[in-house]
Amino acid sequence: MRPLDLIRKKRDGGELSFDEIGFLVRAYTSDEIPDYQMAAWLMSVVIRGMSRPELSALTAAMLHSGEVLDLSDLPGAKVDKHSTGGVGDKTSLIIAPIVAAAGVTVPMISGRGLGHTGGTLDKLQSIPGFNVDLSLSEFRRVLQNCGCGLIGQTAEIAPADKKLYALRDVTATVESPYLICASIMSKKLAEGIDSLVLDVKTGGGAFMKTERDSAFLAELMVETGERMGKKMVALITDMDQPLGLKVGNALEVEECIDVMKGGGPADLRKLCVEFAAWMLYLAGQTKSVEQGRPLADQLIRSQSALKKFRQIVTQQGGDPSVIDDPKRLPQARHRAPVLSRASGFVEAIQCEQVGVASQVLGGGREKKEDVIDPAVGLVLHKKVGDPVDNGEPLCTIHYNSDARLIEARGLLEQAYSIANKPPAARRLLIHRVISGQGAQA
Amino acid sequence: MRPLDLIRKKRDGGELSFDEIGFLVRAYTSDEIPDYQMAAWLMSVVIRGMSRPELSALTAAMLHSGEVLDLSDLPGAKVDKHSTGGVGDKTSLIIAPIVAAAGVTVPMISGRGLGHTGGTLDKLQSIPGFNVDLSLSEFRRVLQNCGCGLIGQTAEIAPADKKLYALRDVTATVESPYLICASIMSKKLAEGIDSLVLDVKTGGGAFMKTERDSAFLAELMVETGERMGKKMVALITDMDQPLGLKVGNALEVEECIDVMKGGGPADLRKLCVEFAAWMLYLAGQTKSVEQGRPLADQLIRSQSALKKFRQIVTQQGGDPSVIDDPKRLPQARHRAPVLSRASGFVEAIQCEQVGVASQVLGGGREKKEDVIDPAVGLVLHKKVGDPVDNGEPLCTIHYNSDARLIEARGLLEQAYSIANKPPAARRLLIHRVISGQGAQA
Repeated sequence: MRPLDLIRKKRDGGELSFDEIGFLVRAYTSDEIPDYQMAAWLMSVVIRGMSRPELSALTAAMLHSGEVLDLSDLPGAKVDKHSTGGVGDKTSLIIAPIVAAAGVTVPMISGRGLGHTGGTLDKLQSIPGFNVDLSLSEFRRVLQNCGCGLIGQTAEIAPADKKLYALRDVTATVESPYLICASIMSKKLAEGIDSLVLDVKTGGGAFMKTERDSAFLAELMVETGERMGKKMVALITDMDQPLGLKVGNALEVEECIDVMKGGGPADLRKLCVEFAAWMLYLAGQTKSVEQGRPLADQLIRSQSALKKFRQIVTQQGGDPSVIDDPKRLPQARHRAPVLSRASGFVEAIQCEQVGVASQVLGGGREKKEDVIDPAVGLVLHKKVGDPVDNGEPLCTIHYNSDARLIEARGLLEQAYSIANKPPAARRLLIHRVISGQGAQA
Repeated sequence: MRPLDLIRKKRDGGELSFDEIGFLVRAYTSDEIPDYQMAAWLMSVVIRGMSRPELSALTAAMLHSGEVLDLSDLPGAKVDKHSTGGVGDKTSLIIAPIVAAAGVTVPMISGRGLGHTGGTLDKLQSIPGFNVDLSLSEFRRVLQNCGCGLIGQTAEIAPADKKLYALRDVTATVESPYLICASIMSKKLAEGIDSLVLDVKTGGGAFMKTERDSAFLAELMVETGERMGKKMVALITDMDQPLGLKVGNALEVEECIDVMKGGGPADLRKLCVEFAAWMLYLAGQTKSVEQGRPLADQLIRSQSALKKFRQIVTQQGGDPSVIDDPKRLPQARHRAPVLSRASGFVEAIQCEQVGVASQVLGGGREKKEDVIDPAVGLVLHKKVGDPVDNGEPLCTIHYNSDARLIEARGLLEQAYSIANKPPAARRLLIHRVISGQGAQA
């Protein structure tokens, strides 16, 4: 096989075979194909798209470029959840303990935040001592001990994805649903799971801005997972405004603890229950997703989820006293409100801008190498539809640098729009369930 | 300007500005943009195409990446001809002397053969001593002395094209009419010419197999040249069978000398007169192209073209005695006929296969580094429409290696197809004239 022929084939809209795609991925990962040839092939994939068999072949080749966990010696089902990322999107820290508290194994390998979206690992690392850099054998031990572990990607998992992503990042070939699907699924399928529930975010704060694009990506991921024998469900959920009220790493951990203690914002709690319900159902803990919802709710109310969270924190070296006293989490030195300049109703919140504000404060990265400040972020007092008076605070900024405050405040002032009337009723939190043969509710 | 934004723009079908394209070409040529980014951009150009202003900007940026000859101190018009390449396509060696014999300056910078097509430089170098590697100042002196010079591309001419072509060659981004146009025109416009006549080959032995593709490329080149203030004409000519009867470097020089002595095959002679007529007209030597044809014919019959060719050979260090005795050109050690296995009429000749046969014999290159054998090649005895008897020779192979003979013979036997009836009348040699405002006949 010659790389040039395979590039030409995709360039002209042709379909590559399983073996041809496997050859490209293997040869690129082992440095036998140069970056410039892979860049040309990736660009032709972005423009021409892929067939479903091509996508499966790409995902499989990337998956098998590294280690695939075998958790068959652990009893019961192994289920995970993956979100495509958003602002204030902290559900993993709540959902994983709920589901693990029911006796299901949740082997969660997560990513870091990039750009305006946060990352589960960064949030966890705001807990003093919490170690996300476990080896796969340490991860397995944590899973054995408490049924759930939350770690970062290791070098053994899908090295092809790592190399391909670095190239995509510098060749404008990130924005392809096919390449995004293969990247996500190759890493998630390495976890040794039986089922996966996907949270595909849609709206201004998500990578996919339209419901149509989000649904297309969701369908690709569900079909790809099913072709590999996994039970798959995808929910398209709203990211047109931040989820919950807190944005920023330690602030979001605090809000998760609130939810696990039975409080917290209703939207966040509802979404966590919904996802946990799907996972409990797919894991065989309930006969339907309808039965999963009260079970998930019960696992919160009984504090079983909180207890499981404490166990996870302890197992991974974190300080569990933050659960009893969240003020022991890193705190920013200063607070400043952003005041409304009009009376009326919050008509919209530019969600991406809120994410950028948190990033600008130091809570996120512009480049991979950036070091983040776990303490900074913001707390929303008003969400879409809420009434507001002139001079009333819309949100409070938690900051450590005056210069950064000024930039973040400007972004947040622009992010809110106030109208005379309340906006049309909010869309339901969950727009659509996409599932295949193996996972009908 | 950031390369990523420009790649993204073209990827999504947008139009880049003059400055944006100039930035990309300059930054790539000076190694500020890595190969993988340029490869992604080139692939998006291949698939998305370019607007005419983008194409002009690309051509201008590549042209001005190097030196542009200023021949304004030489009297009269400066005209050149360029062919997109074919099999037995040797017209430059005849046309340049005809037009120069009329007092027009013909500064011809040519290429080498690659793949199944021959190159003017390789043909010239079969003349003992002929030096195609002149510096631009030596070239200028030759032009002053005899009005015509035939050299290879120097490092000073369009270095951006050299670097881009090397990348296109390994990323399956050669086959784009836009990129082909920019590559050709950036080099030709560096010659300091006022007018350019293009021979756009079409058919089985050309790079563009269909008349539609050839006409599109011709239109792009004519428009691009005119946007830069040049008088442009393109003729679409047939390359469904080899031009003339001889294929191979020294053999083709011999055939050119035959034509300039008043003999040679009719198709070759006719095409040379046609192109010379257009060049004489564009240079202002005649009031119409119709008047140019008898003038070109007269310059051959009077031996003025042959005299000019002798002058050029002498000026560039070649041995002019080959003109009087073409057998002094390199001769292959062996000859072998390819015999017809049927009686009837030659229905078709697979032109590319004839080119590959000559290449296989050693007359062409597979890779740029290959050394060619000037003596080998083949002489056709039968062309399309000719009657043939079983056992009669179709062509004669001139060879220096038995192993290569076997391969070439196989190709040539397959290249000829013999039918009971003669084929439909051949298309006219010249299918179509494409010219802009500045060059109406």
